[in-house]
Amino acid sequence: MKAVLETPNKKTNKLEIIDVHSPIVALEDVLIRVKSIGINRPDILQKKGKYARPPGSSPILGLEVSGVIEEIGENVHFLNVGDKVCGLAPGGGYAEKVVVPAAHCIKMPVNLTFPQAACLPEVFVTAWANLIELGKLKTGSSVLIHGGSSGVGMAAIQLAKWKGSFVYTTVRNKKKAEFCKKIGADKAILYPEINFHDFIMDQTYGHGVDVILDMVGGDYTNLNLKCLTIGGTLVQIAFIKGFRNEVNFIPLLLKRLTITGSTIRARSFSDKHRIIQLLKKYIWPEIERGRIKPYIFKEFSFKQINEAHELMESSIHCGKLVINLD
Amino acid sequence: MKAVLETPNKKTNKLEIIDVHSPIVALEDVLIRVKSIGINRPDILQKKGKYARPPGSSPILGLEVSGVIEEIGENVHFLNVGDKVCGLAPGGGYAEKVVVPAAHCIKMPVNLTFPQAACLPEVFVTAWANLIELGKLKTGSSVLIHGGSSGVGMAAIQLAKWKGSFVYTTVRNKKKAEFCKKIGADKAILYPEINFHDFIMDQTYGHGVDVILDMVGGDYTNLNLKCLTIGGTLVQIAFIKGFRNEVNFIPLLLKRLTITGSTIRARSFSDKHRIIQLLKKYIWPEIERGRIKPYIFKEFSFKQINEAHELMESSIHCGKLVINLD
Repeated sequence: MKAVLETPNKKTNKLEIIDVHSPIVALEDVLIRVKSIGINRPDILQKKGKYARPPGSSPILGLEVSGVIEEIGENVHFLNVGDKVCGLAPGGGYAEKVVVPAAHCIKMPVNLTFPQAACLPEVFVTAWANLIELGKLKTGSSVLIHGGSSGVGMAAIQLAKWKGSFVYTTVRNKKKAEFCKKIGADKAILYPEINFHDFIMDQTYGHGVDVILDMVGGDYTNLNLKCLTIGGTLVQIAFIKGFRNEVNFIPLLLKRLTITGSTIRARSFSDKHRIIQLLKKYIWPEIERGRIKPYIFKEFSFKQINEAHELMESSIHCGKLVINLD
Repeated sequence: MKAVLETPNKKTNKLEIIDVHSPIVALEDVLIRVKSIGINRPDILQKKGKYARPPGSSPILGLEVSGVIEEIGENVHFLNVGDKVCGLAPGGGYAEKVVVPAAHCIKMPVNLTFPQAACLPEVFVTAWANLIELGKLKTGSSVLIHGGSSGVGMAAIQLAKWKGSFVYTTVRNKKKAEFCKKIGADKAILYPEINFHDFIMDQTYGHGVDVILDMVGGDYTNLNLKCLTIGGTLVQIAFIKGFRNEVNFIPLLLKRLTITGSTIRARSFSDKHRIIQLLKKYIWPEIERGRIKPYIFKEFSFKQINEAHELMESSIHCGKLVINLD
């Protein structure tokens, strides 16, 4: 089968589609004939050697796919050959076929296309686990979501509105601000033109927000701590500006703040299953009613994989980038 | 009345006992005739101008006292003149008389002396609020308490054992190790001779501990994050090595750790009251049964206040330092 390894061609520095053996289905797995692949920022980091994938995972890139089940493991009883599913892959998604644990697959919402369904697993699992669970987002609370026009931002804004929160988001330009407002954000802050700390403290009468979802780090971290309210929580899902950060802990002590965070890939098998089941229960019905939507910025063919990565790295997109096979 | 202001004599750099007006009792306050005063590390910081006390608080040092109620505010109904109490003072404790909100006082455990009772409020409120509440310490969990021989360490070790936790603590010498074991610590780690990270990872088969209580910061922070288990919590109550810390956030993301913390003085009036009521309900009976004890290292007269501060700064003590009036 055709697949894309994590290591680019050393001369051209481009990803290449190569021929590899099809993966083998174990007892608890399903083999998905891939229709669409969601591109995620960790894919870029992995390509650049900046993302240590879990030991034993596939050297093929790709964390989320949609497609049709072609084969099921002996112990799989709740999914069948022919089912249209999307899944959180343990790597291996940039391929014609991928093996995914059945526990990490969900049947596609009935109203979505394959490209749309490929946008769901990684970003909605990330937003749920971090914003709803670690951030303990409650109805009536206020939240600042950095990078609201990113894939995770798109999911996080919609989950926060579903929870009944007031949503601030930071964006780089007016186009992204429009996008974020369209999908539900209450206020989009053009950063760095407008200092998000000053804006939020002004809007909240010096009170601050309850929860912040951040993937940037660096100089954002201390500003984040400054614009949290007493007992507030900063949830980090990445550190685009680097994992080493100088933190001023005075606001944390005085306001008894919490800094927490997680990556999905490092979570246990059962934890991913649990979150996927919660999405199926609470969010899939909302998607099927059209209240929550995946937003695709651009679709590419498999051969355009490098163009898709270039667009992701440019950060000019709003929402998801998707690869379609066939 | 006699009292000690936060500002030392500029020539001698010593604290001085001076004459000031007695404080006035408001509707919800009690006036305590002070018998004993607990010395705390924030007193040292405040003396040195490194601790910004809350706006409007007394310029007289002192955060915890024991004594006899001499006067009560009109709205105080659950305490009476003549009651022996200990209290969490909003400052003003280094004095012959201090006004404390009635809500922040408790009647002394019946079996304790005034010096013993003066050791309770600040350190037990700190340990309860941070270790039990923010750290969510559970029965059967494991905890690392840095500086176990400090006043807060002494309270934290005993509360952790009361909760049924396995307690590791770091200490500077063998005498402190003996002290910590005597009051309940399961393992006392002589740091820096023995690297506490290596020790804990070895003892826990690479699993790490559930909760860490730290007042040091600096180079401890990254080691702390490295020796927490998945989902573990680092609770900071101070940063003796400075509030600005370079943090490597990779362990936080991969193990979905939590960093949190608080100071007691910055908490709200009602929050302090709530914690004091919980101590009264759960910990006072344990003290009266002799299962939890305040440990006094040395008692001083009021005139020896500078000697007491020197001893605190030397950090050679184990447990509390107390000033007795009269």
